Amino acid sequence: MKKLFIVKIGGNIIDDEKQLASFLNDFAFFTDYKLLIHGGGKIATDISKQLGIEANMVDGRRITDADTLKVVQMVYGGLINKNIVAQLQTRKCNAIGLTGADANIITANKRPVKEVDYGFVGDVEEVNAKNISALLDSEFTPVIAPLTHDGLGQILNTNADTMASAISVAMAKLNEVHLVYCFEKNGVLKNIEDENSVISTMNYSEYEKYKTENIISKGMIPKLDNAFDAIKSGVKSVSICHAKDLEYIFKEEKAGTKLL
Amino acid sequence: MKKLFIVKIGGNIIDDEKQLASFLNDFAFFTDYKLLIHGGGKIATDISKQLGIEANMVDGRRITDADTLKVVQMVYGGLINKNIVAQLQTRKCNAIGLTGADANIITANKRPVKEVDYGFVGDVEEVNAKNISALLDSEFTPVIAPLTHDGLGQILNTNADTMASAISVAMAKLNEVHLVYCFEKNGVLKNIEDENSVISTMNYSEYEKYKTENIISKGMIPKLDNAFDAIKSGVKSVSICHAKDLEYIFKEEKAGTKLL
Repeated sequence: MKKLFIVKIGGNIIDDEKQLASFLNDFAFFTDYKLLIHGGGKIATDISKQLGIEANMVDGRRITDADTLKVVQMVYGGLINKNIVAQLQTRKCNAIGLTGADANIITANKRPVKEVDYGFVGDVEEVNAKNISALLDSEFTPVIAPLTHDGLGQILNTNADTMASAISVAMAKLNEVHLVYCFEKNGVLKNIEDENSVISTMNYSEYEKYKTENIISKGMIPKLDNAFDAIKSGVKSVSICHAKDLEYIFKEEKAGTKLL
Repeated sequence: MKKLFIVKIGGNIIDDEKQLASFLNDFAFFTDYKLLIHGGGKIATDISKQLGIEANMVDGRRITDADTLKVVQMVYGGLINKNIVAQLQTRKCNAIGLTGADANIITANKRPVKEVDYGFVGDVEEVNAKNISALLDSEFTPVIAPLTHDGLGQILNTNADTMASAISVAMAKLNEVHLVYCFEKNGVLKNIEDENSVISTMNYSEYEKYKTENIISKGMIPKLDNAFDAIKSGVKSVSICHAKDLEYIFKEEKAGTKLL
């Protein structure tokens, strides 16, 4: 099976022009099958404010009402996605920017209303590995925004970490998939204040132990749950590392936290 | 050579939800090689106003300054493009939304500053027919926003009519190309006030004659110049018709104005 690197880049790196440029250099350098999934960053919040759209938060989570969806669709799908694509093109990486609606690569279900109505938020339903493969086989590098569609004409706001995991699982049937979460920290930290406290490897029982001991910060748990789901479903490796360390992952050298 | 329909849909239709839906029904119905290029519409102007960005006009032409570029990139590339893609997906048309930067399909040169500095406006330099063909061969339907890139990381605002013509010329080397300009009028009119005054066919010398007689409205001239350029460069047919008449063009029945 052909190797495929699936890289997710977080919003904090996207917000930092220099760090993003350096990351894209490293990403473009690897010439084989790869795809990029990007998060949202703070730009959508800034544009919403400028448009006078008030953030609607429930339990610390943003509600995607119709106006907010319009903004994230514009910012993620138009502004960030196309800027990344144009920057990768200068680096001789033949990027093609996509949402889940494009080439029907990811359908999602609008999250059902229980205690909270999250609005236009989608939970991944199906990843079309055949269509993603067709793009890779044409030597394109998909660059995917955190947006999906419901197949009924509605674009939905979707978590980029979950998308990365779901795409990895679907592609693992056709490729040897290596999933890499790149963000602004050196890896999974034992002490969130100490960038030198990286846990270099972790299997699922160690993860369970760290969780019960409250060693892993709450914010990391959804990402790690996604990551272990991917491993259980046939993804060859999952790494969580600083964006600047992507080059080591491509060279299969030690960097960040590797899940086993 | 395989037949390829290249359809341009104008901004006034995009602004009208019902007319757009009906047009997309007809567009989706044709199942062979096709691609869609869409204009901008008024949404970008509305969003600019909401963001407090003042339209900068010189001689009746909008200047694309950095703030305006950001808005058109968001609106054309994110909002309009992805809405059309999601709507085509519900109609079983496997649309893939693109700008010129995506898959490097269209590079452009930033328009040189002479009397007027148009800002971030691009004039088409090169169309990558090979990459567009790769997408068509994978059974995707490209949906192209009026944005290009300069190959140096810069997205540029570009006229959709010109893009449609340039894409048609490039694709004519590989396909039997039929270019269709769809808009809110019944065709090229002898009397702009009378929708029944459609000129049903026109060759270049007739066009020259109509121009000297001031029969053709000024707004149509750039579109027609683009159209005749396309015919001279090997495009099989060019039609200019109302969006509601696209179905007749697909069936190769009479509709709108056909250029010879």
